[in-house]
Amino acid sequence: MDKEYKYYWEDFPIGKVIEFGGLTVTQEEIIRFARDFDPQPFHLDAEAAQHSTFGGLIASGWHTCAMVMRMMCDAYLLESASLGSPGIENLRWMKPVRPGDTLRVRNVVLDARPLESRPNVGLVRNRWSVLNQHDEEVMQMEGYGMFKRRANSARQETLD
Amino acid sequence: MDKEYKYYWEDFPIGKVIEFGGLTVTQEEIIRFARDFDPQPFHLDAEAAQHSTFGGLIASGWHTCAMVMRMMCDAYLLESASLGSPGIENLRWMKPVRPGDTLRVRNVVLDARPLESRPNVGLVRNRWSVLNQHDEEVMQMEGYGMFKRRANSARQETLD
Repeated sequence: MDKEYKYYWEDFPIGKVIEFGGLTVTQEEIIRFARDFDPQPFHLDAEAAQHSTFGGLIASGWHTCAMVMRMMCDAYLLESASLGSPGIENLRWMKPVRPGDTLRVRNVVLDARPLESRPNVGLVRNRWSVLNQHDEEVMQMEGYGMFKRRANSARQETLD
Repeated sequence: MDKEYKYYWEDFPIGKVIEFGGLTVTQEEIIRFARDFDPQPFHLDAEAAQHSTFGGLIASGWHTCAMVMRMMCDAYLLESASLGSPGIENLRWMKPVRPGDTLRVRNVVLDARPLESRPNVGLVRNRWSVLNQHDEEVMQMEGYGMFKRRANSARQETLD
């Protein structure tokens, strides 16, 4: 028997807006990510970053993406019948993310439709806007997620 | 006086192909990234992953992006007059990345033009294809990079 999840494709109708997150990034985390994956001076070295075009340490853009993924997992994805994502469009790094910033995500469902080739699976197209504690948009991206559809459509919980 | 770099905007002409990388990812690294950023069972838990649609542990797509960034830094970016990237298009996760896989990147310069608003800066549009040790394309993305232009165009080193 299939595992029961809290959220299925039906829980992400077109136009739905979900806001989640509230993850604060520390200087240590920014530097650790940079050391592993993106050792450019303005991500890695607070002193060197002072003299860079950014005027101080900033998180790697990929670190911000990874934080969004973490917030998504914690908010709903780990309780969802998710089948992964084929990709991302229009990823924009709009403003620097700095030590101590607290990020949250506003998710708008742009499109939702069943997969013709697999009738028990649905596609959801989302736009994710990443906001900091000053309500500034620091990043935006769009992407598809694939979710199983409910076997029993009578059971209609929604994600609120 | 400005720092001297090895690579400037002029070193990325349209049509140029660069291949770099050769980074092997371990099971421990896949699990560590998953624990920090993407704790879905098929990224986090080798046993649970066996029973998933992927038939075994696979790296988070964001981990693959981060590895590409690292290979880029090591290949040329840390020696480049780079001014960062405004974003990414057409990011596609095409095949799973598994423990022990060795990834390399094939970079094609799709477009290169000076910034009209800042004549000392140029834009480069790249397509990055990520290949594993079986020459399978596991990921692809496109994106702009901004680089300073050479102050002295007589000094023409190229990236080979």
